Amino acid sequence: MATQPTQPDVSLFAFAVGLSRENKAGQTIDCFYPTPVRDPTPTLCEAVRDSFEPGVGSCAPERLLSFATRLGDMDPVGLPSGLVSATRAMLEADRPLRIVTLEADTDIKHTAEAYLKLHLLSHRLALPNTLNLKNIFAHLPNVAWTSKGAIDIGELDEALLHGRISGDHLEVTSIDKFPRMTNYVVPNGVRIADASRIRLGAYLGEGTTVMHEGFINFNAAALGPNMVEGRISQGVVLGAHSDLGGGSSTMGTLSGGGEITISIGSNCLIGANAGTGIPLGDRCTIEAGLYITAGTLVTLKDENAKTVKTIKARELAGGSDMLFIRNSQTGQIECRSNRKAIALNEQLHAHN
Amino acid sequence: MATQPTQPDVSLFAFAVGLSRENKAGQTIDCFYPTPVRDPTPTLCEAVRDSFEPGVGSCAPERLLSFATRLGDMDPVGLPSGLVSATRAMLEADRPLRIVTLEADTDIKHTAEAYLKLHLLSHRLALPNTLNLKNIFAHLPNVAWTSKGAIDIGELDEALLHGRISGDHLEVTSIDKFPRMTNYVVPNGVRIADASRIRLGAYLGEGTTVMHEGFINFNAAALGPNMVEGRISQGVVLGAHSDLGGGSSTMGTLSGGGEITISIGSNCLIGANAGTGIPLGDRCTIEAGLYITAGTLVTLKDENAKTVKTIKARELAGGSDMLFIRNSQTGQIECRSNRKAIALNEQLHAHN
Amino acid sequence: MATQPTQPDVSLFAFAVGLSRENKAGQTIDCFYPTPVRDPTPTLCEAVRDSFEPGVGSCAPERLLSFATRLGDMDPVGLPSGLVSATRAMLEADRPLRIVTLEADTDIKHTAEAYLKLHLLSHRLALPNTLNLKNIFAHLPNVAWTSKGAIDIGELDEALLHGRISGDHLEVTSIDKFPRMTNYVVPNGVRIADASRIRLGAYLGEGTTVMHEGFINFNAAALGPNMVEGRISQGVVLGAHSDLGGGSSTMGTLSGGGEITISIGSNCLIGANAGTGIPLGDRCTIEAGLYITAGTLVTLKDENAKTVKTIKARELAGGSDMLFIRNSQTGQIECRSNRKAIALNEQLHAHN
Repeated sequence: MATQPTQPDVSLFAFAVGLSRENKAGQTIDCFYPTPVRDPTPTLCEAVRDSFEPGVGSCAPERLLSFATRLGDMDPVGLPSGLVSATRAMLEADRPLRIVTLEADTDIKHTAEAYLKLHLLSHRLALPNTLNLKNIFAHLPNVAWTSKGAIDIGELDEALLHGRISGDHLEVTSIDKFPRMTNYVVPNGVRIADASRIRLGAYLGEGTTVMHEGFINFNAAALGPNMVEGRISQGVVLGAHSDLGGGSSTMGTLSGGGEITISIGSNCLIGANAGTGIPLGDRCTIEAGLYITAGTLVTLKDENAKTVKTIKARELAGGSDMLFIRNSQTGQIECRSNRKAIALNEQLHAHN
Repeated sequence: MATQPTQPDVSLFAFAVGLSRENKAGQTIDCFYPTPVRDPTPTLCEAVRDSFEPGVGSCAPERLLSFATRLGDMDPVGLPSGLVSATRAMLEADRPLRIVTLEADTDIKHTAEAYLKLHLLSHRLALPNTLNLKNIFAHLPNVAWTSKGAIDIGELDEALLHGRISGDHLEVTSIDKFPRMTNYVVPNGVRIADASRIRLGAYLGEGTTVMHEGFINFNAAALGPNMVEGRISQGVVLGAHSDLGGGSSTMGTLSGGGEITISIGSNCLIGANAGTGIPLGDRCTIEAGLYITAGTLVTLKDENAKTVKTIKARELAGGSDMLFIRNSQTGQIECRSNRKAIALNEQLHAHN
Repeated sequence: MATQPTQPDVSLFAFAVGLSRENKAGQTIDCFYPTPVRDPTPTLCEAVRDSFEPGVGSCAPERLLSFATRLGDMDPVGLPSGLVSATRAMLEADRPLRIVTLEADTDIKHTAEAYLKLHLLSHRLALPNTLNLKNIFAHLPNVAWTSKGAIDIGELDEALLHGRISGDHLEVTSIDKFPRMTNYVVPNGVRIADASRIRLGAYLGEGTTVMHEGFINFNAAALGPNMVEGRISQGVVLGAHSDLGGGSSTMGTLSGGGEITISIGSNCLIGANAGTGIPLGDRCTIEAGLYITAGTLVTLKDENAKTVKTIKARELAGGSDMLFIRNSQTGQIECRSNRKAIALNEQLHAHN
């Protein structure tokens, strides 16, 4: 019996062509990918593998032109929108072309890979907590983000001095490992009142409005539609039709939330200046000004306002149809079923 | 008896000459009016009506020149300061001239009208809640606000790509229907630490200082003098000599305040990280960290610290000389008369 | 006995060469000093005194060149790094050279002096509350900070109009007496997510990360390493390894903290949306959402959770090893020893 010839593995995890900026020592300080691709089709994988080495590389214009031409001849179905035109356009660039071909979602080994994963998140090609972001901090240099673009931190003093001398104003907007998202990608159907508060790597679903007090970290999401006037920490996902009131807080794993990853389901409201250190299910409310942490003792009330028991908030993690208030007469923190929530109450009584 | 000839109605609600920016399809994406006029004098109305059609229009330079010349010949008394010189200067512009003549304060029907009303507010020609802003959201396009000015949201991807290719950095500061006020008007006698937090349409009276954590929405005011380190939501008016502590919150009608419009009288202090969901009169204080909502049960204390009764905060709406604290021994929210406030106490006892 | 010849006093408090910007009337609106010097060595003092008059002055390029040449011939030990090269570079400037020689730390008498003291703080040459800042507000003009640099407030309307006419976008980022620090100095080893929230005059020690919600005023410090996601008010110093949670607040003397200067020792944690109106020693924690003011009644608990007494928080000012919470069952604010903190407990019992 004749054996079938082995089909070459043509799958890729992700692929992108972009432009990078480098410091005077030739090190990459940021990368921009107009049309990153995740899980390219076999046809596109083949074209990529035929044209470029795996991993992070650069590219002579001729090779990129021939790749763009091959793409232009392909069936546009299955090609991400804009990929061909953006690739062609980048041939005109006066800065290094960057090609990244990731065979799998492995630990980050290069700045260009870190930027690609951040792009995947902001392009809505990956949800938070689904990518391997190991070593991301190690591979993101701390950069001065300025009105002239990215400047290596070691070259900033000279740039500031020469801006003053020449009278050509240099504005330094941030000194950070992460740039603001909107200079790289602006997903459709969003409003962002103050773009300095959304890091590249944030996931903003369609219908998300982030007001001036809102904030979304990298690897964090508002799935949309949402009104975000509070802070979505790293790792936190906010579900559809949930709102974060002004100045409200979600605890991140990087900053005090510990090992629990916070998520908030759909149709929730975290009141102004409130906060949560536990994940919430759907249709939950925390009243304005109240902060619930995992260790907070909470008095549970059933739908008839009868006390069920007193437990730590972490035992309520992920529950739905909960209303948290601090009783303004007794100072006691209560969790009330905010409608006839049978599922919730069953869960509560099961703890008895 | 001879009848007097009917005097033609020469009144106008508002008038402005400005410059607009358009997208590639020719749609208006923003308007700038250096010297908008409200309730112009009869003489100015006549000049306007003789020169321009009512409503929103554009204008050939010759017509604007002849209008400017006529204004230059008029008695400068009654002409807004700067109107003639700004009108003449705009003849040099390389972009569309925009003329808006509003006979009455009607529902908004055009982007140029929406911008005019926002200008009236920020030029201190109208207080919040006194203009007809109906349909304003429908007529304000969502725009990318960038270091190159306003860019249509549909044209942004290309602009970002070409900025990268050319090395000419494009900074995207906001994706929003409302621009920041300071790019259009800076009223005299104010300090604004972070201009990204003041929307066009905010009313900042003389003597207003807005610190970095302060925020003022459109159709919202600090009448001045004020120290604003908290958030003034849409519709909210802060009276003279009242201060908003860092991170404090006022509930807006768009975001949870419901149908009550919040206002805060004079000589009030909302503490840091505190908030109010009810309107306050004069000389009221909310202690740092305490959030009062309309439904909060409050224990009233008279000037001798005796409990009068327990009521919902909404029943105290608009009262003066009130001090709100949460008793740090009992957890009870109290409203104390913060001086011998006879008027207040009469009001309180009247509720008995 | 022969008297020794009197040694001329060659000491100076501070010295700087910089570039200033002026309004159309020739008044200084800001100053930039790339390498300010505090307590210059006697040799440098001599060179300075031989070259320039004391106080604030300007300088012809020839004089500065001869000064730079003299410095270049000096032993580089004792010369601040970069002083010679920056001084030479400024000879190329198209704007006024500014020389400031302060013999002592006297009351501020000129804008150039105010800027020098702010530079000393941000260059880590002076800690907060160690400089004489008297009259600083009087000598800092309110300036429009824009994408074209500093613009006199009285010249802004015209600049905005002409920017619109020419199509050359003018971005107005702030109207304030204090500029953002990062346009003047970026100390080594810091991250600043949103530079609009750090004023010139802030002191950021090595290892300080200021997240988007963090804020540091002038004459305020994070000694580093620190994670700052809250607000450090004027006069406040945050010790090493202490963290400010998102939206947390420290009361400043300018805004409600009264005469007490707040400081926070090392290894403290102020939780998200929490705040303090009293100074704290080392290893203190305030739970998320709790605001302690000087007048707050606090129930002290010893290491065995036994109530010691109830006192005003101001009596605990400066104590170490304290944990502040609001009991979620009783609403009572408690101060617990957060480890076997003998020193603390001795202090507490001493109050009995």
